[in-house]
Amino acid sequence: MNSDRYQRGLNKIREIDGDAAEKSVEGLKQLDPDLARYVVEFGFGEVLSRDGLTLRDREIATAAALAALGKSSSLLKVHIHGALNAGCARQEIVEIMIQMAIYAGFPVAINGMMAAKEVFAERDASGRK
Amino acid sequence: MNSDRYQRGLNKIREIDGDAAEKSVEGLKQLDPDLARYVVEFGFGEVLSRDGLTLRDREIATAAALAALGKSSSLLKVHIHGALNAGCARQEIVEIMIQMAIYAGFPVAINGMMAAKEVFAERDASGRK
Amino acid sequence: MNSDRYQRGLNKIREIDGDAAEKSVEGLKQLDPDLARYVVEFGFGEVLSRDGLTLRDREIATAAALAALGKSSSLLKVHIHGALNAGCARQEIVEIMIQMAIYAGFPVAINGMMAAKEVFAERDASGRK
Amino acid sequence: MNSDRYQRGLNKIREIDGDAAEKSVEGLKQLDPDLARYVVEFGFGEVLSRDGLTLRDREIATAAALAALGKSSSLLKVHIHGALNAGCARQEIVEIMIQMAIYAGFPVAINGMMAAKEVFAERDASGRK
Amino acid sequence: MNSDRYQRGLNKIREIDGDAAEKSVEGLKQLDPDLARYVVEFGFGEVLSRDGLTLRDREIATAAALAALGKSSSLLKVHIHGALNAGCARQEIVEIMIQMAIYAGFPVAINGMMAAKEVFAERDASGRK
Amino acid sequence: MNSDRYQRGLNKIREIDGDAAEKSVEGLKQLDPDLARYVVEFGFGEVLSRDGLTLRDREIATAAALAALGKSSSLLKVHIHGALNAGCARQEIVEIMIQMAIYAGFPVAINGMMAAKEVFAERDASGRK
Repeated sequence: MNSDRYQRGLNKIREIDGDAAEKSVEGLKQLDPDLARYVVEFGFGEVLSRDGLTLRDREIATAAALAALGKSSSLLKVHIHGALNAGCARQEIVEIMIQMAIYAGFPVAINGMMAAKEVFAERDASGRK
Repeated sequence: MNSDRYQRGLNKIREIDGDAAEKSVEGLKQLDPDLARYVVEFGFGEVLSRDGLTLRDREIATAAALAALGKSSSLLKVHIHGALNAGCARQEIVEIMIQMAIYAGFPVAINGMMAAKEVFAERDASGRK
Repeated sequence: MNSDRYQRGLNKIREIDGDAAEKSVEGLKQLDPDLARYVVEFGFGEVLSRDGLTLRDREIATAAALAALGKSSSLLKVHIHGALNAGCARQEIVEIMIQMAIYAGFPVAINGMMAAKEVFAERDASGRK
Repeated sequence: MNSDRYQRGLNKIREIDGDAAEKSVEGLKQLDPDLARYVVEFGFGEVLSRDGLTLRDREIATAAALAALGKSSSLLKVHIHGALNAGCARQEIVEIMIQMAIYAGFPVAINGMMAAKEVFAERDASGRK
Repeated sequence: MNSDRYQRGLNKIREIDGDAAEKSVEGLKQLDPDLARYVVEFGFGEVLSRDGLTLRDREIATAAALAALGKSSSLLKVHIHGALNAGCARQEIVEIMIQMAIYAGFPVAINGMMAAKEVFAERDASGRK
Repeated sequence: MNSDRYQRGLNKIREIDGDAAEKSVEGLKQLDPDLARYVVEFGFGEVLSRDGLTLRDREIATAAALAALGKSSSLLKVHIHGALNAGCARQEIVEIMIQMAIYAGFPVAINGMMAAKEVFAERDASGRK
């Protein structure tokens, strides 16, 4: 777990998740250490650490894709936090979710908006933007 | 078809599709005039014309969502053109498709990349960025 | 929020949801007022208010589509109530869910049936058909 | 292949597909005789032959579900023919596809409409309603 | 409910579910007796009772497919139990879930792994392999 | 491209794809060299090269998942070839596709069977098992 890729991945997770990063990685390691290593090394250390697209834009793409796919709201919420941590305004998240109504239907937009508003409330409760 | 919403939608389609806009709208009208009107009035005239997120960012969200959903490559290609017309660099599109491997699997990333490269070739052939 | 389309949408929601309509719309408005407006104006006021297909048949199509897509059971339940309010018999809902086994697999049919039976129990509890 | 269920299934396929029924069944048998038998015996002979929902309503549910799932247009077209053969008006099919924009997004509605219009053209060419 | 197919289906369910079989079938019958009969007669009595692929391999295919489709974790867990009952090692289940990251993305792999680890804990609690 | 992981990945692709391996990798590299590297290094060199599940069982899981997801038949066909190359009998592939009718519906089973039969014909034409 000491590879360069792993360290780079950890740094990227901290950039995205902020204070929640250690707990996320610890949870994944408890679930399965190999899967956790792939998420950190390959997902965050290789792909999300690439140049060519800002982290903010990467999180916009991820939030849109996860909302459209109807993935579990817990994962979507991680990346809405990530998008806000990377510099998105709350209204930009709201716009992404409304826009998904066009491409994936209103049920997707409504679920995405629910996740967004839960994230906003969590951040209000802890005094974050 | 002369409502404000319709005119605003037409303008937005021209901003996204450039020279291909008239043909796209005409094709939709021939398919079904009511569905065409909803696409123009509601999709482009209301949702995509909203403030709060730039057109470039909207097209990033759309390209990511359509690639992740595995939608027909013809529609995905329209929005890859749209993203480039709205100011994305080609490499930014490439990055979005690579990133989809993490969230939706390699088959999605490969299909998205194929669509992207076809778009780049079309633009090379007509001397566009 | 006083457009003709909005009023027509509200009327259509009342026709589908009955007594639950006000609460549904209020919940959507609290979630996001713009998204709520689009659902009411465009979804219910334009599309679901069209002629050419009865409300009962529209709700059959919606219940089948939402069940097949595996959408959240809460939304599916809204439209099973809607189908019953629009004149479907309970057995017709049961038949739709069984039929989905053919086109989308048994897991979809079982989930759809669970939603249907929960709706029937709710209606029994309040003395509705 | 002489079970009651199989005969009942064949009769139901003829009711849905009309003149195309023999060719459909023959194609399935050439693909795989066991899978063909399950489609005929279970799909058409048991499920689609049930009472409790008219064939017309069953085909509305199927056309909506297949369109929403984004299934291959060839299968969707079979069931659009089936809905028309079972008594649906063309405009009712158009309405189902427009409605899918609300629940599954505009790309689904556009693809469904394309399938519908191809079916209408095929029927025009052979003088059917 | 006394057909040969039904009896064969019941036997197959007992082979897959072990002690949980009676409760599963009873639950399905309470949900809807016709749907329960189709699951038992057609699903287990015809398809899963076929020769040509071992039950262990059938459960591998099912666990992979259900994980990839993102189906409810309760159903996925039934088939992870089934795979273990049919002779899979726990590590083989872990490998299937990790592999799904490649074909369906990391969110699918993580959800599948969560279901697997819950199953392992249930089996530890009751002293099963 | 000379990392250990890359070499291990190439070896695994040759084991799965046989003579088609070089052409597959070359095609991916022409599409995008970075995405190709991730497929080879991570997909084949890390995940598919893991112990704990035989290659034959891995290909069964993949064929089932890709068929269930309705992914492009070209990718599904690669992995049906892979399953046969890794020791599956043709009838075992047929069984997987029939079984998918239960979990993902008949349209999925029919499309999967079409892919399987095309693979069998290709192998007949070149004298392979």
